[in-house]
Amino acid sequence: MTAAQQDFRQDFLQACRDAIGIAHFLTADADTAGYLTDQRGRYTGRALAVLRPGSTEEVATVVKLCARHLVPIVPQGGNTGLVLGSVPDTSGKAVVLSLTRLNRIRAVDPVNNTMTVEAGCILQNIQQAAAAQQRLFPLSLAAEGSCTIGGNLSTNAGGTAVLRYGNTRELCLGLEVVTAEGEIMSSLRGLRKDNTGYDLRDLFIGAEGTLGIITAAVVKLFPQPKAQVTALAALRTPDHALRLLSLAQAQCGAALTGFELMSDFCMQLVAKHFPPHRAPFDRLHPQYVLLELSDSESEVHASEMFEAVIGLALEQELIDDAVIASSIAQSKALWQLRELISMAQAHEGKNIKHDISVPISRIGEFIRVTDVLVQQASPGCRMVTFGHLGDGNLHYNVSPPPGIKDTDFILEQPAINRAVHDSVDKFGGSISAEHGLGALKREEILRYKSPVELRLMRAIKQALDPHALMNPGKVL
Amino acid sequence: MTAAQQDFRQDFLQACRDAIGIAHFLTADADTAGYLTDQRGRYTGRALAVLRPGSTEEVATVVKLCARHLVPIVPQGGNTGLVLGSVPDTSGKAVVLSLTRLNRIRAVDPVNNTMTVEAGCILQNIQQAAAAQQRLFPLSLAAEGSCTIGGNLSTNAGGTAVLRYGNTRELCLGLEVVTAEGEIMSSLRGLRKDNTGYDLRDLFIGAEGTLGIITAAVVKLFPQPKAQVTALAALRTPDHALRLLSLAQAQCGAALTGFELMSDFCMQLVAKHFPPHRAPFDRLHPQYVLLELSDSESEVHASEMFEAVIGLALEQELIDDAVIASSIAQSKALWQLRELISMAQAHEGKNIKHDISVPISRIGEFIRVTDVLVQQASPGCRMVTFGHLGDGNLHYNVSPPPGIKDTDFILEQPAINRAVHDSVDKFGGSISAEHGLGALKREEILRYKSPVELRLMRAIKQALDPHALMNPGKVL
Repeated sequence: MTAAQQDFRQDFLQACRDAIGIAHFLTADADTAGYLTDQRGRYTGRALAVLRPGSTEEVATVVKLCARHLVPIVPQGGNTGLVLGSVPDTSGKAVVLSLTRLNRIRAVDPVNNTMTVEAGCILQNIQQAAAAQQRLFPLSLAAEGSCTIGGNLSTNAGGTAVLRYGNTRELCLGLEVVTAEGEIMSSLRGLRKDNTGYDLRDLFIGAEGTLGIITAAVVKLFPQPKAQVTALAALRTPDHALRLLSLAQAQCGAALTGFELMSDFCMQLVAKHFPPHRAPFDRLHPQYVLLELSDSESEVHASEMFEAVIGLALEQELIDDAVIASSIAQSKALWQLRELISMAQAHEGKNIKHDISVPISRIGEFIRVTDVLVQQASPGCRMVTFGHLGDGNLHYNVSPPPGIKDTDFILEQPAINRAVHDSVDKFGGSISAEHGLGALKREEILRYKSPVELRLMRAIKQALDPHALMNPGKVL
Repeated sequence: MTAAQQDFRQDFLQACRDAIGIAHFLTADADTAGYLTDQRGRYTGRALAVLRPGSTEEVATVVKLCARHLVPIVPQGGNTGLVLGSVPDTSGKAVVLSLTRLNRIRAVDPVNNTMTVEAGCILQNIQQAAAAQQRLFPLSLAAEGSCTIGGNLSTNAGGTAVLRYGNTRELCLGLEVVTAEGEIMSSLRGLRKDNTGYDLRDLFIGAEGTLGIITAAVVKLFPQPKAQVTALAALRTPDHALRLLSLAQAQCGAALTGFELMSDFCMQLVAKHFPPHRAPFDRLHPQYVLLELSDSESEVHASEMFEAVIGLALEQELIDDAVIASSIAQSKALWQLRELISMAQAHEGKNIKHDISVPISRIGEFIRVTDVLVQQASPGCRMVTFGHLGDGNLHYNVSPPPGIKDTDFILEQPAINRAVHDSVDKFGGSISAEHGLGALKREEILRYKSPVELRLMRAIKQALDPHALMNPGKVL
């Protein structure tokens, strides 16, 4: 770097510091560390500085400075992503732009069923602000205590209520975005219908910060259900689970808000690592389905609906056994079985995760075919198959055979990933259902995305971020 | 035009004829007339030819020919649009590319709740194919007997079931598109979750054919409700209607699938022009709301829910009277009151239509304020206010004062439009809620869309259609 270049960089850093205040301009290792390593601790990057602007205007000022000095920007929310989308690379050339200080709830409109929130709002705080107005913000996922809505929007997060309420994309009506040029696009409209041009909103949603920086959003709220009731069904195969899904949807319509598949091995791992948690049946069953009903009438009505569905399912021999939770505590205990799977799997040793989706109708066949392919790739490995069956989204994870060292098992990862992702592709599925591409799957997607789609994506990137400064090395 | 240019054009036309067959290459006035005039008969354009390809490959071939010869393309579905989006201008330089021969339903997957349809499928045929599998395709609008799904997608059509099921955008999972370069983008994935890059799907949806040509789509299906029950409530003001909406949503949740506001003057026009249709109450009321419940249980259950809501609404003095339809015939009769308004208004003389939306919570105030503004712009005119209140979408139409000639009244259109649209803008609304921009509102939107949004839209247009051949003069 020449002296002139060094001066130019110092000018840039000085201008950033002036723009956002020295307290929010971080360069000391102790201050920046948490922003440079991903949540699972697999990767640590470097940065010129970590910038924590306190308003949309400050974000715009910083982005303009970056554009002028050609400094790459890595936007970051709660940094809870799983695909290395929110940490910088190791070049040290980029700044991390943390949105966490933009954490105001700007407005709640219970009649319009909308809330205007800044990007750095923690998801759980949004849920609670909605509940305080007798409204539901349905987005719900494991990281909700620390992830931010800006990150949820940028990755189009999924979670456990997609079956009824859709992905984050479906929960957003309007956005405020700072473009790659540092302009502020204020489209914070709380409208259910607006057909006045291209859908810029959905282009920024799911773009993982590579086209611009989401600084605020208008999100949808819903009436709070009067009751939520949970049941656990024991059954033989994923195909039986599919037939149960069709039955439950026909009987319950939109009241069916959760439908999660868990294999027996998942439940065994939970029972082993988190006693006394276990599936509440006399004997083992090959598969389990967790169902949730959200009812606008009453708990009694929800339970009656469940009893009718379970009765029909037993009669049609779709399921072999079932329990309906009769209290909130019981409901929570059933959900915990589902939520403990990831941790139980971690306790069991290294594991290889896949966040995949296929058409719901093909899930049974997909599992049968792919289980064989994975065994060929890694003989003796154990499948930890669970997930949002109602959305066609499986966490199709692989644990090593007993007694194999993690370091040996991890060598098999490329072959296992290839087997799973090639199979997903053959079934018309997606290799990233809800986590995004980030840096982790950026190369992998080139194998599966058509040249036309890649060309269009690159054309859009070039049009909206011509200097390629927005979250470089992610997605594309 | 030089001789060389004429030859070039003749080569182009010959190549198109060869590509799609002479029977589908239309140039005679008698053959092309229906493709050149808009549905309401307000505008007639000209075209080099009307091309009716029979497959996606033929569409791609034609688009490649157009790209090579720099011939503009006007894609057309059922040509039922209301904003001059699907007819060519009068230059005669473009070809009309009709998608109506691409009318196959390629696949129905009732377990995945999806259907793969070609762009030229008539909406009603899709509804029927879904019903044949005990599934619901919920998109429903006045033109459903002749509009095509390709047009619905290109305009992101709304209709009467948006409250529960969303706009066309929300009903689509995957697209097949012929790009402006004539490539085929095959993204016909029937996935509920897929986070592998930019949302190209939603960019083409609602782009009114200006970025590429939608040739097929995977659409979402839903379980068929077991019962649909309709009620009509009589009440005092739009604000009372809003409070009724909140009550009904809290009580019925997703079962509330329709919520339509109609002013007394609307009902008077229907009663005058279509006797014996009239609101079924002893006396006149200032406003009426049509409510629809779709129930996954039974008609009895739906009626009980309605009785509970109506009882509470009477108790809270939100409504003054109500009837619940006790048969399908009665339900239909209530819906007819709503559907006859447009025709009744047409019988009453020339009228000026506005397809606007505002945040639902602001509808009452919007109507009060804007009614005054419109009276100032056109003293004595009569408001025909009705629409999808549950979506914040009003057809806020204006009929002339009695005795005024149509030709005189139409002179006031610019002043009336300006008053209404400026007011919509002040209320954070949209000047085109469900009809799109087409050629009709292309200039108008420049007044209301921010420079940043317009710049981004133009950048995307330039990136995806660099020669500006796709539906020129529409949207942008």
